[in-house]
This record gives sequence, C-alpha cells and structure tokens, in this order.
Amino acid sequence: MPTLDQARTIIEATRAEGRRMGLKPLSVIVLDAGGHVLAFEREDGASPGRFQIALGKAYGAVMLGMGGAAQMKRAEDQAYFMAAMNGAFGGRVVPVPGGVLIRQDGVVTGAVGVTGDTSDNDAAAAMAGIAAAGLTGEA
Amino acid sequence: MPTLDQARTIIEATRAEGRRMGLKPLSVIVLDAGGHVLAFEREDGASPGRFQIALGKAYGAVMLGMGGAAQMKRAEDQAYFMAAMNGAFGGRVVPVPGGVLIRQDGVVTGAVGVTGDTSDNDAAAAMAGIAAAGLTGEA
Amino acid sequence: MPTLDQARTIIEATRAEGRRMGLKPLSVIVLDAGGHVLAFEREDGASPGRFQIALGKAYGAVMLGMGGAAQMKRAEDQAYFMAAMNGAFGGRVVPVPGGVLIRQDGVVTGAVGVTGDTSDNDAAAAMAGIAAAGLTGEA
Amino acid sequence: MPTLDQARTIIEATRAEGRRMGLKPLSVIVLDAGGHVLAFEREDGASPGRFQIALGKAYGAVMLGMGGAAQMKRAEDQAYFMAAMNGAFGGRVVPVPGGVLIRQDGVVTGAVGVTGDTSDNDAAAAMAGIAAAGLTGEA
Repeated sequence: MPTLDQARTIIEATRAEGRRMGLKPLSVIVLDAGGHVLAFEREDGASPGRFQIALGKAYGAVMLGMGGAAQMKRAEDQAYFMAAMNGAFGGRVVPVPGGVLIRQDGVVTGAVGVTGDTSDNDAAAAMAGIAAAGLTGEA
Repeated sequence: MPTLDQARTIIEATRAEGRRMGLKPLSVIVLDAGGHVLAFEREDGASPGRFQIALGKAYGAVMLGMGGAAQMKRAEDQAYFMAAMNGAFGGRVVPVPGGVLIRQDGVVTGAVGVTGDTSDNDAAAAMAGIAAAGLTGEA
Repeated sequence: MPTLDQARTIIEATRAEGRRMGLKPLSVIVLDAGGHVLAFEREDGASPGRFQIALGKAYGAVMLGMGGAAQMKRAEDQAYFMAAMNGAFGGRVVPVPGGVLIRQDGVVTGAVGVTGDTSDNDAAAAMAGIAAAGLTGEA
Repeated sequence: MPTLDQARTIIEATRAEGRRMGLKPLSVIVLDAGGHVLAFEREDGASPGRFQIALGKAYGAVMLGMGGAAQMKRAEDQAYFMAAMNGAFGGRVVPVPGGVLIRQDGVVTGAVGVTGDTSDNDAAAAMAGIAAAGLTGEA
C-alpha cells in the first residue's frame, strides 16, 4: 500500500494541479487497500462535508475495484444496482469521477478521492497527484 | 438447511465452474434458511468488498423468497419497491442475478450468492455449484 | 495478506484442533489486513449468530492491532474505553480471546476469529490453525 | 477555525514530538469547530483503525466542549453518562486523553485527536503540536 510519504506527495501534487487548473478549493483523501484512511486535507473555503464525499469516492473505488467513471456508467445503466451497493457498504459509495484507483505492479493498493470542482476536474487532479508519486491511477 | 459439508461442496463446485468458464476471481457465500452465513470464500485477486456483495445477493434471495433474476425484474419494473426492500432489510439486498435459492424437497433451505464476473455468469456458476451438492437451485 | 489457500488451511486446521480437544461446534473466520472477509465456516450445530461473533473477534484485533486477550484486559481495566471502541467501529468489536492476529515477517496481515467453546479454547484452536499454515499467531 | 496551513503545522509538529519522545507510530487528526475533518495523517506501521480512534477523541472534545482528560474523569465518575453521550453522538465519542481542544482568543475553534501510544503521551504530543501552530490547547 502507499506509504504516508507517498500519500502526502499525492495530496500535495493533487492540490498543486488544482491551483494550476484554476479549480475551486479541493479536498483530497488517500485510502489504503482495505479502504482505511491514510491521509486527508481539506482546502480553506471548502464546505464542511467534503471529507465524507472524498471518502465515498475513494471507498467505493477500493471496495468495488472500479474507478469512479466506471461506477458512474454502471449507475446510469442500472441505477438500482448502485443504490444497492450503497446499502451494502453502509451508504459510503459515491459513484462519480474523482474516485481513482491506485495500482502498483498492476495490483490495487489503495485509492484517491477528490472533491470540490466538477467531477471530471476532480479526477484529472487526482490522476496528476498519483502520477507525481510514481504510481498508476485508474480513473 | 444445508450442512457445512454441503456448503463446502457448493463453494468448491462453484469455483471449479468459474475456472472452467474462464471467469474472473469469484466470491461465494452460502446462507441457511434464516439468512445467516454458513460458509464463504473469496478468491485471490477479488476486491475487498466482495463479501458484502455476495451476502446481499444471497440475503435478498432468502428474505424475499425470490432468486436474483426475479428480484432484478422487479427492480426494473418498480424501482421504488426494491429501494423500500433495501430500507426494510438494512441495506442488505442486492437485487441482481447471482443470488440463487437452494430448494430441498421444494422448500427453500438457504441461498448461494456469487459475485466477480457478470451477474449472469455468477448465477450460472452458482447453479452448477448447487447441482454438484445434489440440491436444486432457483436463479 | 493470507492467500485463500492459506485461509482454508487455517480453517481446516482450527476445526481439526477443535475436534482433537473435544470442543463444541466451532465457527472460524479469516480476515485480511483491512478487516475484510477472506473465508468463513460454521460447523453444524452452532447457533446462527456465530458469524457476527467470529467477525467481531477478528475485526477488533485487526483494527486495533491487539489480540483478543489484550483487548479483554483493556476492557477489564477500562470498560468505557472498549465501549467507546465499539461505538467507533460500528458495534463490530468483540474484545475476548478467540481473536488472533496473523503476523508475517512481523507485520499484521490479517486475523482469525474463532467462537463456539470457551474463549480460551477458541484462542488455542485458532493458534493451532495459524501455525498449521506456517504463519505466526498473536492471541 | 484553524486554516489548513495551521492544521498541517499541528500534524507535522505533533508527529515530530512523537519521534522526539520515542513514541509508537501516531495518527493525528485536526477538526474544525463543527467537528468536521480538516486534515489527517496515519504514520506507517499504525493499525488500520486509527482514523476512527483519532476522530472519536477529537470529535467528543468538540461536541462536548471538554478535553479528553475531563471526559475520562466523567466516564470514571459516571460511566452511564458517557455511554449515553456515545449513543447521542452515533458512537463517535472516545473519552480518553489525546482529544485536545484548540482555543483561539478563548474560543473553541477545533480539536486535535492523537492515537498510537499511551493516552497521556498522545495528549502530550498533541499539546506540542498545537503550541507549534501558535494556538492554545486544552487537554
């Protein structure tokens, strides 16, 4: 799984990419392969519920083994399935872009969740953050 | 209800059928007639949340007395009904194929839940597993 | 984390030790390092709620990084702390012997939970099961 | 409330104090005045459930307006009161030292939660972290 230093690099680089892209204040979480929190930061000006949204994007990705974009497609094709997933995982699945799997040597070792701007911009910033840590993202 | 030996046979035969069909890593659960877990196995490489998905498929089948295919039809015809079922059962109903009732002499005595590949393939593997134990499945 | 084959060996050897010791029907769970279920079996004659008890013993061990015996001592010294842990982890911590950490090269990679006989006998059977898989248990 | 830069300073200085004191791997959370997460870090080697414990220490402090030491005294004097608080706050109150209020000009503007070593050492590290950010802690 990512080390804390890698998680900090991901968060720092995701936030830097957000500033470079001119995004709204971002909140960024990094989870381990079991869906447990390694690190989180919420930028000044973000609404107070951003932790739960970032967590939901990343947690769903880890638990289902699917990035947020794939989850959103499934939600659009079969809404009741994603509703059921939310029940099965205690309401903690947010199936939109911005939840990005971290792969190391092909294996899922964690996930990043970003929220604050549009879902697609959130995902782009997360991908940049993961790349900056030398890891592979799957949006 | 199934004995543990029968449950183990179901899991072993479901997994063997998955390999024969070339499916992705499967997770397989067997529940008793009260919806309680008898046995479960998650194959290497499956995402960590597969227990909850397998449980939801099998639990919904037992509690509603309907296989996953029948539940999916109901969800597509009347989404709010299945949403309400999920509320009534604490979020633990996953209404898609792969939840298969076990019948012995016509009576429901448990259910199998399989997840990992497409829902239809999951159900086919479960049916093969139940047959291998000399029991009757209802997908 | 343990492979499924290792988890199956642990369960088989724990059950064999239970028979050798003349214990009541056992239920045995193996979790990965994130507290997620790898495998579970409930012996014939055990009460239907044994999954939750086995899960609680093993889940608390993984999440707190403490075996069941250490948790029980803490519960006896400071009952409100263990009550608070149960709140923090959604009611899923059962702080008694029978929850045993799995260590590989010194690192916690999962846990075993056993329930059915006295807590100390449950723990002894779990330790034998873990040893049979060539891993190190911490009761 | 603390800015993200202040929260980051608190975490960095708390972790540095932990190393200086020779403590086990620490997990550190900073909450705002509404009990919502601003920032969190879990050091390598900590058990996966440390987020929930750090959150519970800091959340109880903010919501009750009492540091962890005062909460522990109340739990020892009147255990059922703290049990009731845990019910009222959804199980998220961990009433031991390591939950430290942040005061700015006398007003509570957030809280820090630290877990990993003894509760008293956790609290000492949190106090050092808050002081390093130029704020006042109440353990």
